[in-house]
Amino acid sequence: MKDLKYYLKVVEGIFESEVFVAEPKELYEPIDYTLRLGGKRIRPTLLLAADALFGGNIEEAKGAALGIETFHNFTLLHDDLMDRSPLRRGQPTVYCKWDENTAILSGDTMYALAWRYFLRQPSPRLHEILQCFNETAIEVCEGQQKDMNFERSGVATDGEQHCRGRVSIDEYMDMIRQKTAVLLAGALKIGALYAGAPEEEVEKLYRFGIHLGLAFQLQDDLLDGYGDTAVFGKKTGQDIRDNKKTYLPLRAAQLCNGEQQRELENLFADKDNIDEEEKVRRVMALYEAVGLKGEVEKAIGAEFALAEEMLDGIVADEERKLPLRELMEMLNGRKK
Amino acid sequence: MKDLKYYLKVVEGIFESEVFVAEPKELYEPIDYTLRLGGKRIRPTLLLAADALFGGNIEEAKGAALGIETFHNFTLLHDDLMDRSPLRRGQPTVYCKWDENTAILSGDTMYALAWRYFLRQPSPRLHEILQCFNETAIEVCEGQQKDMNFERSGVATDGEQHCRGRVSIDEYMDMIRQKTAVLLAGALKIGALYAGAPEEEVEKLYRFGIHLGLAFQLQDDLLDGYGDTAVFGKKTGQDIRDNKKTYLPLRAAQLCNGEQQRELENLFADKDNIDEEEKVRRVMALYEAVGLKGEVEKAIGAEFALAEEMLDGIVADEERKLPLRELMEMLNGRKK
Repeated sequence: MKDLKYYLKVVEGIFESEVFVAEPKELYEPIDYTLRLGGKRIRPTLLLAADALFGGNIEEAKGAALGIETFHNFTLLHDDLMDRSPLRRGQPTVYCKWDENTAILSGDTMYALAWRYFLRQPSPRLHEILQCFNETAIEVCEGQQKDMNFERSGVATDGEQHCRGRVSIDEYMDMIRQKTAVLLAGALKIGALYAGAPEEEVEKLYRFGIHLGLAFQLQDDLLDGYGDTAVFGKKTGQDIRDNKKTYLPLRAAQLCNGEQQRELENLFADKDNIDEEEKVRRVMALYEAVGLKGEVEKAIGAEFALAEEMLDGIVADEERKLPLRELMEMLNGRKK
Repeated sequence: MKDLKYYLKVVEGIFESEVFVAEPKELYEPIDYTLRLGGKRIRPTLLLAADALFGGNIEEAKGAALGIETFHNFTLLHDDLMDRSPLRRGQPTVYCKWDENTAILSGDTMYALAWRYFLRQPSPRLHEILQCFNETAIEVCEGQQKDMNFERSGVATDGEQHCRGRVSIDEYMDMIRQKTAVLLAGALKIGALYAGAPEEEVEKLYRFGIHLGLAFQLQDDLLDGYGDTAVFGKKTGQDIRDNKKTYLPLRAAQLCNGEQQRELENLFADKDNIDEEEKVRRVMALYEAVGLKGEVEKAIGAEFALAEEMLDGIVADEERKLPLRELMEMLNGRKK
């Protein structure tokens, strides 16, 4: 029986046997550096497991697995430049280790390499596969733009939907769907297409990926406030320091009374002249007062439940669903 | 008989009927701005004319024509950011009119849109077409990297081939082949593939495009020194002010005697403490002394002759070669 570990190992093997360094080395060394930094390799693993779920030969989908991870790393490389992030996976980001122009051009080239890997292996459904990959890429770009737009916006309180300059929960969920969930869902869909799965099952698997992706991102938001620094390697409260309008303040604003809402808004607008750690403490106290943690866990649980429901409904060999269930549990377990 | 003007008009029609604005508008407005700035639209015109040359139905290649021009404009957008160029086609560049992050992300999205347009219309040779497009894209990125590397290098004098830190003529020709010529050649090849042209003819057309592209770029280098400001809208000598190692100083270095070589090198290294206009005058005087203009014109003429030879050798309806001949003459006429 092939479990999650098996597919992760296959993915590691793909990366180990691929050569990323070429001429001119100024262009390819940052690419090699980025693709060898590691990471959880979730997307290519999902792609191969989805292919196998419908009885596909995973050998035929290895190029696409490499392509989807190369694309994902390209988006991280450009995002890190746009966000001016100094570190990625505990190492200096490309724009810091080299410079901005290197990050731009090596990123562009990684995007082209992703296409090279996708085009490496033919498939009767190649046109559909490439369209799925490409429309996913466009949505990821749109999601990143919305994320940047939100940074300049305020927090919408309960009842406000599209209040100018404020972010509503619906808009936020739409943003993380595009920025995070569609790539997981797209990876699964592409794997299923390689296996020649029926349209209906492909659709269910895609929706499984969307709910999994949403749960994953909400989990990430929650960890910023409540994660164990020792386990997750990140200092808690960074989103608060950065005034990031994640699910936490957006949901908190709905749970707050009028007075608490004003306090939250002022804290996220840096209107009180207090130091960063005091700000984190006050925001966390507000979260505590409205029972935010339980509410967010409920929302995450709901997304995981929807994902599971989708997976249960897929008509395929139950044994082959194992790696997808394991992955879901692994992501779900992050909160503990 | 369909002439160059006819295909240019078809291309204009494609752009006029396409909608580039979508949500989020912060992402798509710079794309619409870029794609509506105009330009000569040489690449999509070549693509359609090549398709028609071999009896293809140009309706089927319109998506690819739109795609190749969208890709070209994406490279200009990112190049302008990397080169910090304030103007493009006489208008502010995206990074100046908006900001750096907009230039990065709108550029990335334009690249994805290019793929959307390529994937819009099926073709029996789609896999080959997409591979040609993608390998071309990778070469363009490599060419841009080499161009940036050259900016930090010196000028190799006669006989030096790969002298460390100095650019040789061979290396320069290889760089402009990748940065400029392969996209013209790729556009022609893609058009021919849509028409289902025989492999041999596709290869000849590709080589026609390479020589045309090299001639075009050398022409551009020459115009910087000898162009008519009133006609070309650019101040002459800008490459000299920027110490750009174009074909002009590289070829001049070969023609110079030892003393002249040292003077040229010092001028391009800004070693003499003189003002910019004096520097331009001294470099131009050196060019004059070695008869550079005539030598560069000879090199350009040789590339045009090779292009023409390739075109002559293509087995196809002579009448249908007309637009390609007209384009060659148009580009050749730029020097007058």
